[in-house]
Amino acid sequence: MHTQRFEVRTHTRDEMVDITDRVHQAVAASGVKEGTVTVFVPHTTAGVTINENADPDVVHDILAVLDRIVPWRLDVYEHTEGNSAAHAKSSIVGCSKTLPVTAGQMVLGTWQAVYFCEFDGPRGRAFLVTVTGR
Amino acid sequence: MHTQRFEVRTHTRDEMVDITDRVHQAVAASGVKEGTVTVFVPHTTAGVTINENADPDVVHDILAVLDRIVPWRLDVYEHTEGNSAAHAKSSIVGCSKTLPVTAGQMVLGTWQAVYFCEFDGPRGRAFLVTVTGR
Amino acid sequence: MHTQRFEVRTHTRDEMVDITDRVHQAVAASGVKEGTVTVFVPHTTAGVTINENADPDVVHDILAVLDRIVPWRLDVYEHTEGNSAAHAKSSIVGCSKTLPVTAGQMVLGTWQAVYFCEFDGPRGRAFLVTVTGR
Repeated sequence: MHTQRFEVRTHTRDEMVDITDRVHQAVAASGVKEGTVTVFVPHTTAGVTINENADPDVVHDILAVLDRIVPWRLDVYEHTEGNSAAHAKSSIVGCSKTLPVTAGQMVLGTWQAVYFCEFDGPRGRAFLVTVTGR
Repeated sequence: MHTQRFEVRTHTRDEMVDITDRVHQAVAASGVKEGTVTVFVPHTTAGVTINENADPDVVHDILAVLDRIVPWRLDVYEHTEGNSAAHAKSSIVGCSKTLPVTAGQMVLGTWQAVYFCEFDGPRGRAFLVTVTGR
Repeated sequence: MHTQRFEVRTHTRDEMVDITDRVHQAVAASGVKEGTVTVFVPHTTAGVTINENADPDVVHDILAVLDRIVPWRLDVYEHTEGNSAAHAKSSIVGCSKTLPVTAGQMVLGTWQAVYFCEFDGPRGRAFLVTVTGR
């Protein structure tokens, strides 16, 4: 068992930061050969997702759709801090993802990357990587 | 390894019940020091999420946005039970979240709480907490 | 620890394929009595969810709502491959779910089934099942 913490800096309000390499590193450092790796985001206006990293337009389009689904300003919002959309996006995308580890490596599909999702940036953020197994 | 079952009572159609204390208790009772904790909801019209517990307006706004995204009545619905919106919200929010356990404690960010999400209440509900590690 | 790979064939653009039996089989084959099982989808235009399998209209309605939330054609899309909606649905539904294993069996609620979610079919697809514990 092994939990490692990483820092991430975001630069705009909505942003997806590719953290795949750091998750791979944490798995390698854990020495675990067979098990799972959990990526966890300890924030309420951010999340973690897995999606394509080949064409940057995919990231653009995912963030654009989320913004259309959950507009930044809406009559129903009562939270005075003004970032209710970011909280809702966090609950829709989720703040935790678990992936298989086999032969000492996190398993990812050909086109998959792990992304830290910023929904209320720019900010200094963190994420945790826990590797379980043996 | 350790799985514990908890009951939860909901009082309205859409509701987020803070279950953080019970998850903390299950982690403590497991004796696990390093690993993960999974919160699982065995229902198809409910879910589990992690979000802010400081300002209750955040919960209000998340539920209001979900209701806007997935209206209770919609022409496309064919399910005669009339609660298709609750099923869809369950699949959007998800019924399973996994968090790190370090030094014998579930890791949560400063503003994070674990919420049981009711989308078709009021009902008597349950959730399961599984702690893995050592 | 035990990771098993399964193939799945989809037949339409949007489809939910019940994979519950195969996940049960993987848990049984692992010999794990107490722990967790993670279902992981290694694709960026597909996902995995848990929802009702009693009335097929529930699956219809979930797919119809997702299509309403994330329309196939939208002015904001820049990804030239034309399947941005499928990528967004993948990130909304998620590609990983973790469930408890107790007494050698995956725990599911009375009405729950595990579904492979196709959002850009028809295609030949795969999913992975990792069982952890002892």
